[in-house]
Amino acid sequence: MQAGIIGLGLIGGSLGLALKETRLFQSILGYDSKPLHEQQALHLGLVDECVSLEEISSCAVIFIAVPLDIVATIVNNLVNISSSQTIIDMGSTKSLIHSLINPAIRKNYIGAHPMSGTEYSGPKAAQKGLFKNKIVILTDTEQSGELQLSFAKEIFVSLGMQIIKMDSCNHDAHIAYISHLPHILSFALANTVLAQEKPENILALIGGGFRDTSRLSKSSPITWRDIFKHNRKHLLESIREFEKNIALAKGYIEREEWDKLEDWMRHANSLYEFL
Amino acid sequence: MQAGIIGLGLIGGSLGLALKETRLFQSILGYDSKPLHEQQALHLGLVDECVSLEEISSCAVIFIAVPLDIVATIVNNLVNISSSQTIIDMGSTKSLIHSLINPAIRKNYIGAHPMSGTEYSGPKAAQKGLFKNKIVILTDTEQSGELQLSFAKEIFVSLGMQIIKMDSCNHDAHIAYISHLPHILSFALANTVLAQEKPENILALIGGGFRDTSRLSKSSPITWRDIFKHNRKHLLESIREFEKNIALAKGYIEREEWDKLEDWMRHANSLYEFL
Repeated sequence: MQAGIIGLGLIGGSLGLALKETRLFQSILGYDSKPLHEQQALHLGLVDECVSLEEISSCAVIFIAVPLDIVATIVNNLVNISSSQTIIDMGSTKSLIHSLINPAIRKNYIGAHPMSGTEYSGPKAAQKGLFKNKIVILTDTEQSGELQLSFAKEIFVSLGMQIIKMDSCNHDAHIAYISHLPHILSFALANTVLAQEKPENILALIGGGFRDTSRLSKSSPITWRDIFKHNRKHLLESIREFEKNIALAKGYIEREEWDKLEDWMRHANSLYEFL
Repeated sequence: MQAGIIGLGLIGGSLGLALKETRLFQSILGYDSKPLHEQQALHLGLVDECVSLEEISSCAVIFIAVPLDIVATIVNNLVNISSSQTIIDMGSTKSLIHSLINPAIRKNYIGAHPMSGTEYSGPKAAQKGLFKNKIVILTDTEQSGELQLSFAKEIFVSLGMQIIKMDSCNHDAHIAYISHLPHILSFALANTVLAQEKPENILALIGGGFRDTSRLSKSSPITWRDIFKHNRKHLLESIREFEKNIALAKGYIEREEWDKLEDWMRHANSLYEFL
């Protein structure tokens, strides 16, 4: 049995390494539209072999780990997909892509979102343990075939992941707040500070707080452009809610309502009562 | 020679541990207005002895590590300070406090801001290595006595710190962007997510990005209330600049100007070219 991975960046590359360890497959085939990525993936041992998209199409399971804007096109262009094959989309938003999947292969398709990643991208960012002990969300599973769903679960469990099922619209709404909003805030923090401060001052004054809060601003603009595009509606809602919150704090500070500001911070503290 | 520490929380407690290691002092005396903090500090070995404020007043060096709002009062209430004693204020904002220090003891006083901290507070949060290899900013040093300045430098170097001198107004302006803004954003992110999401969804969907970006929201509301109060003007300016930046990104997303959004993110990436 062979596994194929389309897209050999952080997610696809890490998946190659992790799948090798499971010994579920005889070989792991890879494909990336960038020849350099394929060379790097082979050099780093992320996959066993790089092959054409046609060859990938014949694998028992085909993972899609490409920028969101091309996921549906790639899935729909896979050729001669049989009823026993499984296609697992590893993208970070789900609802729009689900709506674009060709109904003829909808049962083959599994929407999955592994809750793991780093701010780095490309084959060199791949890590063997990226998925271990992490959550993977499977979306709209009732539209996938039973065989495909059970195979996908077997694979994710072998990777050491915990599985959660969720409606794709709910997934996108929640993930806007918990993942996409922190990313846009981090990009905005980086740009705010870059506009105001010289590099030497940033270097002199940096502490762990700024480092952590700005870490996500290293993330790939190409990956995140597509994520923000695909989750535009929910992301905008989350930004608006955030803007209300920061305006609330700003108002307390402007009006010197320090007790209210303290209460507001104390409420924020409660997040870590259950985290 | 004895060192005294007023305030035995994260900063004061960590300082006690670190000073013990330097062997510069025969003993480290502590004082905290909370009896529980004194008990914890003694139990954890952060200081050698807890004594009255009067006794602390006779130490060769007296460190002030209390919430900003009471720093100036505590410094000005130290009794019988001789021309050879040194008072080191470890607070996170400087300009307002400098203006409140009694001119009669201004030469004794050193304004210092160690660029180290964690989101935790109280004696139990103390860490021996908190200051090692970190930067400490000394502010308006021309107003401190030569003896005091050279003693303070000797101590900070012994702690393994790098020293930077800065005008207190500049310090407060820069630190608003690089430390205070990330804190207020983290509190606001936590409150935004708490208002929208049930704990079970946050737990299910949390990744490293949210964890890092929300980490500072665990910080002490009491400590940060005072910091925000003391740096109100600069903090408000930094919030307004941030609001413009997030509004810019929101506009790109609303108008679906994805190329502009990508450029905006690419610019943010440049922060990590020198960090």
